[in-house]
Amino acid sequence: MKNIFSKSRVETFSDGIFAIIITLLVLEIKVPHIEEHTSTSELVAALAALFPKFIGWIISFFTIAVIWVNHHKLFKQFRQLDSGIFWWNAVLLLWTSFIPFPTAVLGDYPGNFVSIVLYGVVMALMAVSFTLMRWYVVGKKELLEETVDFKAFRTGTWFSLLFGPVMYLTGIVLGLIHPYLAFAVYLGIPVYFIFSENKN
Amino acid sequence: MKNIFSKSRVETFSDGIFAIIITLLVLEIKVPHIEEHTSTSELVAALAALFPKFIGWIISFFTIAVIWVNHHKLFKQFRQLDSGIFWWNAVLLLWTSFIPFPTAVLGDYPGNFVSIVLYGVVMALMAVSFTLMRWYVVGKKELLEETVDFKAFRTGTWFSLLFGPVMYLTGIVLGLIHPYLAFAVYLGIPVYFIFSENKN
Amino acid sequence: MKNIFSKSRVETFSDGIFAIIITLLVLEIKVPHIEEHTSTSELVAALAALFPKFIGWIISFFTIAVIWVNHHKLFKQFRQLDSGIFWWNAVLLLWTSFIPFPTAVLGDYPGNFVSIVLYGVVMALMAVSFTLMRWYVVGKKELLEETVDFKAFRTGTWFSLLFGPVMYLTGIVLGLIHPYLAFAVYLGIPVYFIFSENKN
Amino acid sequence: MKNIFSKSRVETFSDGIFAIIITLLVLEIKVPHIEEHTSTSELVAALAALFPKFIGWIISFFTIAVIWVNHHKLFKQFRQLDSGIFWWNAVLLLWTSFIPFPTAVLGDYPGNFVSIVLYGVVMALMAVSFTLMRWYVVGKKELLEETVDFKAFRTGTWFSLLFGPVMYLTGIVLGLIHPYLAFAVYLGIPVYFIFSENKN
Repeated sequence: MKNIFSKSRVETFSDGIFAIIITLLVLEIKVPHIEEHTSTSELVAALAALFPKFIGWIISFFTIAVIWVNHHKLFKQFRQLDSGIFWWNAVLLLWTSFIPFPTAVLGDYPGNFVSIVLYGVVMALMAVSFTLMRWYVVGKKELLEETVDFKAFRTGTWFSLLFGPVMYLTGIVLGLIHPYLAFAVYLGIPVYFIFSENKN
Repeated sequence: MKNIFSKSRVETFSDGIFAIIITLLVLEIKVPHIEEHTSTSELVAALAALFPKFIGWIISFFTIAVIWVNHHKLFKQFRQLDSGIFWWNAVLLLWTSFIPFPTAVLGDYPGNFVSIVLYGVVMALMAVSFTLMRWYVVGKKELLEETVDFKAFRTGTWFSLLFGPVMYLTGIVLGLIHPYLAFAVYLGIPVYFIFSENKN
Repeated sequence: MKNIFSKSRVETFSDGIFAIIITLLVLEIKVPHIEEHTSTSELVAALAALFPKFIGWIISFFTIAVIWVNHHKLFKQFRQLDSGIFWWNAVLLLWTSFIPFPTAVLGDYPGNFVSIVLYGVVMALMAVSFTLMRWYVVGKKELLEETVDFKAFRTGTWFSLLFGPVMYLTGIVLGLIHPYLAFAVYLGIPVYFIFSENKN
Repeated sequence: MKNIFSKSRVETFSDGIFAIIITLLVLEIKVPHIEEHTSTSELVAALAALFPKFIGWIISFFTIAVIWVNHHKLFKQFRQLDSGIFWWNAVLLLWTSFIPFPTAVLGDYPGNFVSIVLYGVVMALMAVSFTLMRWYVVGKKELLEETVDFKAFRTGTWFSLLFGPVMYLTGIVLGLIHPYLAFAVYLGIPVYFIFSENKN
């Protein structure tokens, strides 16, 4: 293994991508068109119609912030990077950079079950990418910092497999009953992470 | 409290978001469509019609630059970050990253009172996020650099609560008299910050 | 030669550009418009019609990630930068920053041979820029780190000339037989890089 | 003067903005719409019609790269930053971040004299911002690195005033004779900088 990857440059690159994605989300909310430019009631109604888009934007914003935190915590445990980690990280960035698209579809068609499936599947794929990156490192102990408890890391890998994807698939299934149940789960996942984080 | 957040990585992430937002603003100014491609008078008229958009863009540009300065000054006073600061910072970034939307609405409907309310409310929420972040730190003294005067920091927190949001709400109320009064206040707030800054 | 260019600032600047380009790609995939907002079959059909755009996005995503890796490896071999390297780097960034355009054209007109030529030519120009930057450094040995094997570097320069552009031109020619053959080559190039990388 | 501004954080912020602007330029080149999706002649014609947009994009790309270099060289001469430099830098960033708009107008209406004036005026304002930042520092010697030749710096300030804006205004005037003369000047300015740079 040649140690060609500077950890800090990969982190900066990843952070740059996270920062751009979290900011691009708002571009999917277009200024509504109203006929009577000075009509306050028309503009209020047009903005109110964007409500599902605002909800989708907030959910995706906090989800990406949680991805950033999890990425940060994971990379702190790596002693060095090899190309394997780099490419599993690239897969994670692929799915994360895709998030603005399912967010926009969900905002445009909030009552359509296909939007809910698309959003949940992309998020599940993103979450699985974390698991795959961890799994790769479980098989290459020497990439971990010496201070890391290997057994806890391996257990955390299994936990991450069960937690993220299973939760998103639960959201999809609940969306069959009512779209808002899926929204609640999709918002609940980052909120849970934020508060479980704060307890530490 | 586990010290999992690298201050420099959070600063870089925040700076990236500020840089992207300040640059995306210009994307909301679309090239006007004119019939006669070589007609200078038609193009001058079409560009002149974009005047409210240019004003909105300049106001938001300097507002975000002031946010950057205030963020920079605030973070200089933090000794370390915990997840509480991280998430209050995320709330600040949420409202800041939203700014292109109310800016675009204001540029499209400058004479509509709803645009003025939307702009002022988003800015007030952004300003309140600063206060909340400070408040959190007031309750956790150990997060402050030892060189920071705690009493001055606490007083500054109350001041920030009164100053930012109250000014923006004043702008909204003045917008009831004439839209341009609101514009003047919204521009006046960052300009005041810039010049009060320069005196130091 | 005045050493005016800080290597780390040029790297950061380049990384920022790579991060932005890789993230902007997804903006070219627009939310499809459907008549019946809650119709799942209509939304599935509309998303399925975007299939060529998803493929183009994935190809360009991994291509840009490979560009990042190659850029990283190349810059690790430079001891310092002069303005010559800076401007050959700028030419590389020019063609790389152009990638979202041919990607979008390919996604909109996947069966049109002109799209395939455009995509292959832009990628070949990007690949040639790497060769030109290396060639420049071959003539200015003092810019290389002392640990770099000069002969291997010079051979690698010729190899890069043959490999990248020749492969892309092969993709174009195969596109004459069937567009999907070109797609396969365009995807195969980064995939080959990724796996040849991982063997090291 | 309180030294509140970290030079490296301001540089990173500015670099981020430059990187984003240089990359956003390509978003103004939209995929052309053609009727017959597989018609190669129609797509060639549609792409050829975008020729002025490609030229405008290349001019602005290299102009922003030159801005980056000049910014880099200027900041290397500063020992520290105060809020005055910060805000003159913000003015420079304001005009630089505006560049995608006049570039898009020029690409859409290349034969319209108003486009040429708009482009030249924005560039002249950007160039003047450099002069103003330098002028401010001429009056505050203590902000300069001790190794900087103050007289040369002051002379360079006058030179920058004459050179940039005067050249852009010349481009505007020549545009009265033929639009392509203005294009030639606008392209010639960064090209001149690049090659005068390389001689050093």
